Amino acid sequence: MDLLAIVAHPDDAEIFCGGTLAKHADRGDDVTIAYMTRGEFGGFDTTQAELADTREAEARRAADALGALVTFLEFEDGRITYSLENRLAIVDTLREHDPDIVLTHYADDMHPDHRATSRLVTDAYYMSSLPLLETEHPPAGPSNVYYFGKPTSSFDPDVVVDITDVQERKEEAALHHESQIEWLEEHGGIDAEFSDFVEGMRATGHALGRQAGATYAEGFTRLHDASVEHLK
Amino acid sequence: MDLLAIVAHPDDAEIFCGGTLAKHADRGDDVTIAYMTRGEFGGFDTTQAELADTREAEARRAADALGALVTFLEFEDGRITYSLENRLAIVDTLREHDPDIVLTHYADDMHPDHRATSRLVTDAYYMSSLPLLETEHPPAGPSNVYYFGKPTSSFDPDVVVDITDVQERKEEAALHHESQIEWLEEHGGIDAEFSDFVEGMRATGHALGRQAGATYAEGFTRLHDASVEHLK
Amino acid sequence: MDLLAIVAHPDDAEIFCGGTLAKHADRGDDVTIAYMTRGEFGGFDTTQAELADTREAEARRAADALGALVTFLEFEDGRITYSLENRLAIVDTLREHDPDIVLTHYADDMHPDHRATSRLVTDAYYMSSLPLLETEHPPAGPSNVYYFGKPTSSFDPDVVVDITDVQERKEEAALHHESQIEWLEEHGGIDAEFSDFVEGMRATGHALGRQAGATYAEGFTRLHDASVEHLK
Amino acid sequence: MDLLAIVAHPDDAEIFCGGTLAKHADRGDDVTIAYMTRGEFGGFDTTQAELADTREAEARRAADALGALVTFLEFEDGRITYSLENRLAIVDTLREHDPDIVLTHYADDMHPDHRATSRLVTDAYYMSSLPLLETEHPPAGPSNVYYFGKPTSSFDPDVVVDITDVQERKEEAALHHESQIEWLEEHGGIDAEFSDFVEGMRATGHALGRQAGATYAEGFTRLHDASVEHLK
Amino acid sequence: MDLLAIVAHPDDAEIFCGGTLAKHADRGDDVTIAYMTRGEFGGFDTTQAELADTREAEARRAADALGALVTFLEFEDGRITYSLENRLAIVDTLREHDPDIVLTHYADDMHPDHRATSRLVTDAYYMSSLPLLETEHPPAGPSNVYYFGKPTSSFDPDVVVDITDVQERKEEAALHHESQIEWLEEHGGIDAEFSDFVEGMRATGHALGRQAGATYAEGFTRLHDASVEHLK
Amino acid sequence: MDLLAIVAHPDDAEIFCGGTLAKHADRGDDVTIAYMTRGEFGGFDTTQAELADTREAEARRAADALGALVTFLEFEDGRITYSLENRLAIVDTLREHDPDIVLTHYADDMHPDHRATSRLVTDAYYMSSLPLLETEHPPAGPSNVYYFGKPTSSFDPDVVVDITDVQERKEEAALHHESQIEWLEEHGGIDAEFSDFVEGMRATGHALGRQAGATYAEGFTRLHDASVEHLK
Repeated sequence: MDLLAIVAHPDDAEIFCGGTLAKHADRGDDVTIAYMTRGEFGGFDTTQAELADTREAEARRAADALGALVTFLEFEDGRITYSLENRLAIVDTLREHDPDIVLTHYADDMHPDHRATSRLVTDAYYMSSLPLLETEHPPAGPSNVYYFGKPTSSFDPDVVVDITDVQERKEEAALHHESQIEWLEEHGGIDAEFSDFVEGMRATGHALGRQAGATYAEGFTRLHDASVEHLK
Repeated sequence: MDLLAIVAHPDDAEIFCGGTLAKHADRGDDVTIAYMTRGEFGGFDTTQAELADTREAEARRAADALGALVTFLEFEDGRITYSLENRLAIVDTLREHDPDIVLTHYADDMHPDHRATSRLVTDAYYMSSLPLLETEHPPAGPSNVYYFGKPTSSFDPDVVVDITDVQERKEEAALHHESQIEWLEEHGGIDAEFSDFVEGMRATGHALGRQAGATYAEGFTRLHDASVEHLK
Repeated sequence: MDLLAIVAHPDDAEIFCGGTLAKHADRGDDVTIAYMTRGEFGGFDTTQAELADTREAEARRAADALGALVTFLEFEDGRITYSLENRLAIVDTLREHDPDIVLTHYADDMHPDHRATSRLVTDAYYMSSLPLLETEHPPAGPSNVYYFGKPTSSFDPDVVVDITDVQERKEEAALHHESQIEWLEEHGGIDAEFSDFVEGMRATGHALGRQAGATYAEGFTRLHDASVEHLK
Repeated sequence: MDLLAIVAHPDDAEIFCGGTLAKHADRGDDVTIAYMTRGEFGGFDTTQAELADTREAEARRAADALGALVTFLEFEDGRITYSLENRLAIVDTLREHDPDIVLTHYADDMHPDHRATSRLVTDAYYMSSLPLLETEHPPAGPSNVYYFGKPTSSFDPDVVVDITDVQERKEEAALHHESQIEWLEEHGGIDAEFSDFVEGMRATGHALGRQAGATYAEGFTRLHDASVEHLK
Repeated sequence: MDLLAIVAHPDDAEIFCGGTLAKHADRGDDVTIAYMTRGEFGGFDTTQAELADTREAEARRAADALGALVTFLEFEDGRITYSLENRLAIVDTLREHDPDIVLTHYADDMHPDHRATSRLVTDAYYMSSLPLLETEHPPAGPSNVYYFGKPTSSFDPDVVVDITDVQERKEEAALHHESQIEWLEEHGGIDAEFSDFVEGMRATGHALGRQAGATYAEGFTRLHDASVEHLK
Repeated sequence: MDLLAIVAHPDDAEIFCGGTLAKHADRGDDVTIAYMTRGEFGGFDTTQAELADTREAEARRAADALGALVTFLEFEDGRITYSLENRLAIVDTLREHDPDIVLTHYADDMHPDHRATSRLVTDAYYMSSLPLLETEHPPAGPSNVYYFGKPTSSFDPDVVVDITDVQERKEEAALHHESQIEWLEEHGGIDAEFSDFVEGMRATGHALGRQAGATYAEGFTRLHDASVEHLK
């Protein structure tokens, strides 16, 4: 089975679904992370170009730690917008990678780039299998879209993945985003000894896990229900 | 894996979870249906005692068609109430059967017997594993409770089970409830050539299935989330 | 009373509100279906132009069966987008037809064309009565907008219309969309003897009807509440 | 058509559904208000017995102003509880009056008497038509139950009744509850020139009406959906 | 503390948050109302230019009554759309005024201008503090965004502000919008002796206040939770 | 200001609202914890009587660490039920302590004792101020009831209290419940080096805090809205 995570910024995959990606990679699934942007707005005392390079390098190291391949799409940080043209670009991304499952941001996320990405992926999902719609690659498409949920408010997931076994690797992957840890501490006014970046990720994963019988977990909603064969 | 469905009346199991029970029975799980009552209010031109006998016999034939064992608890149709004493009776039922999963009515169902059953099972679930609470059988308990959802209004299930392969058997099982088909047609003012009892069940199952990629399906919510190992 | 259904594709009116349109036509209301597109993406082994012609012809036959007039707007299948210009085009459509009630897609539908249509109609509704906004036709507008609800997930309607008497005609109308029945069976991987297209429509209508005391029903939400004179 | 409003206390009918009852009475429907209690806890500087007499007299005058008959059931203010025995008492009340529609409190109301009344009526509704359940009067029952909604928090009604024409009479009826106006001003710490009792009722009715195209309105949810013949 | 209310049309601030703005102004906070448009579509028998002048003058008098400063942004009535360019314009507005709190329309409001404004402000909020995003003014931004809630349907606020003391002034401020009172009476078909414009505002404020222990109140949701030091 | 937390079992106060209680105690408020039971079912290899003594002692030490007084009511663990008699007992508890605010369990909690406690407190709140209802102590009552929220599923609080400054003390207080830490590890099948009891509490508090701008937080819903003077 192939997974494709389409995320707005270099650290979004690690934070929101890094454990799930690692588990799938571990069992032999092909896992790819497509970054809409190189996150060139997420810093200070630098230029957008320099920051893009730094963050791309961090993303490559983080994805490597998770066992995922990476690709960078041609959108701009803070400026992802919904348009028919952009939707068609994502249609072709879906067709090129032809994943079984696609993961992306929640439609109701607070970040405008996350929301635009979510909407583009959802609508591209629908169109990617239409034979009469021609793009560079042939028709194809995932069987479902999984959304990460809202990071900034209460969220009731449809599916909870137990990531206890890979929580440590998820944290290691996240720590490769050194520029962001520094930036979030500064920009968010955080002044803790140990990085809140990882502490927060851990608390969120443990708080959710406790509701579902796991030590650490990641939660998702999905575009449409999928039936199962038996109860568990 | 063992399943125990605790339902208020003789035909509730077939209507709400008959397909799921049949699938589990087919793969070798032990499946038991515990009827709270013998449904002795569900008729006319008869006595409660006669009707109870008729419906118990129908229930036994229906359960047999699904591959399930049956047991009858000592509650009265239309008169199931919530009390500490009744909760302890269900605690002991859970301990006696010691299932992995218990299925029961939705807490918000319109029928008072369904609601009381749902509440009794939910609260018994919690207490059944307490070592210091002594009942006839030793502490034990299911890992989760699955609820059937609301039959009379819109319902958003957590888990959808594909029952396409056993839909025909579910219908056959339901048709053993001859007294109810007659009663529902009369009492509900239904006057169709072919029984609405089965047509309705089929429509509900197909309407839900279409949302989840199955021809026929049954839906459930559950008491608490349960984590999965991978996405599907 | 005049009704105007504004739908994205040729078969959407029959599937979502065909029974309601037929009932209103039967009692003498003027009923018009405005198709945003001619559905030219809904097929394979053909060209968009050929398919558009085929589907327009099917739509005309289907609308005829319902007793509705048709009009085709100038949008493209799979490419309806929200813009001020498109909104003004719909404002003028509303002013030209001047219906009492407009019916359209649900804002939260999974299909991007359905969502864009829903949004355009809702916003055009607001603007259509403004005297200082000049378009080709004079100010006018419906008293309310009714939305079809979500086809792919649970949905809690505000208004349920009993379509039992016209269910057969709704099915006949839907069966005029021959190209779509073939396409949906192929594209959706459906391989049933009798068309799932109609079976699904029937199951959905019956499952909803059972909640509201009807054999078959169609459900709607509406833009704003409307008061009634008495309870029923 | 006959309506029966079953309310916990003497002023509940006027406040929650007085306009709707008056409109139905005006068109010739039989309208009865059944008071669960005589409201003997709603005061101070008096005895429960005296207060019960005062409030019964006020209720009779208020109901008269609305055009409704009254009956007093044998429950005690502040002490209505849910039990099988009490449910059967309400079953017999429903059978005795045999209304087409019953109105009562919302299940999620903050007042314990309102909640218990709501639950008793809902469950009695279900049982009132069962032929094998014998009570003093023969089987019968309303076609639906309408609930008043939550007075103390936001509420989304299923049905909104335009009561503009009878708002004045609703206010007159409410003003017959002189003991309660005094008591609410004292107990609620209200100290306005003109009674807040009526001002609040008027504001609530107008605020809701504005959402549904009426000057004054009353809102209800109902036990189950009911289909309509046409859109309006 | 500084407040900035960004509203679509000249009377929106008075109707939705006029009491809250007045209370903050009274205690010495800097309060500014930024009007997206001059409301030039809200009339008849006039030109858009004349109406814009009239309404700007009314808005200035109304804001003066509340103790607020005003500014007019360069959007067009009925034609506010979401775009990256418009978002950046609002980013610069936020940076120029540098408020602690921003107030704006609810994302789910029925009016397209209100929705577009809500979305632009929410997304601008996120971007306004990014150092690498250059606009005319330096990075800055409010600590939270408060939304007015839905005027046309039920609404469950997160925060309720007691405006009893300034209700009279809110009404006076609203009455400065003479052109709108006339227009709403005409356009909305309202024909009451005393203006429904103010009556409706008063009813809505009193109906909400009664839920929260105040005579008059205004309600808000907010972009993200904010913690408090103690319960009250 | 006086606070009274009414909780079912000895460790519930520390887990659900320990930080909030400590903050109020620190600023001089009178804070009392009323335990419905002594938690005599929460163990194994012991008797109910021994366990009750152990847990009462732990509760006293924990409350002492928070700066709260304690009282033990006469209910039995696992057997708290809703009845008029029990409601009146809580009415008298509220009158005896006469708090400004009462805190208790959420009505929708999974634990039957928590649900019964929540319902008893809510209904007692309503009756505690009625002058004609005589109990041992004179009429009195809190101004509002705050509920802890659901520990086992997603929860959207109305009020979030920043407990960062007292998180350490909350953890210390919780650690006094030695019998429960052992019992939860055993009963819940937990086998971690460092107690999950405290880790879980910390994760939940941090995950919530992150949504509301605090390092650690506790969340509450409340019985009815309460208005504020200004936005923050």
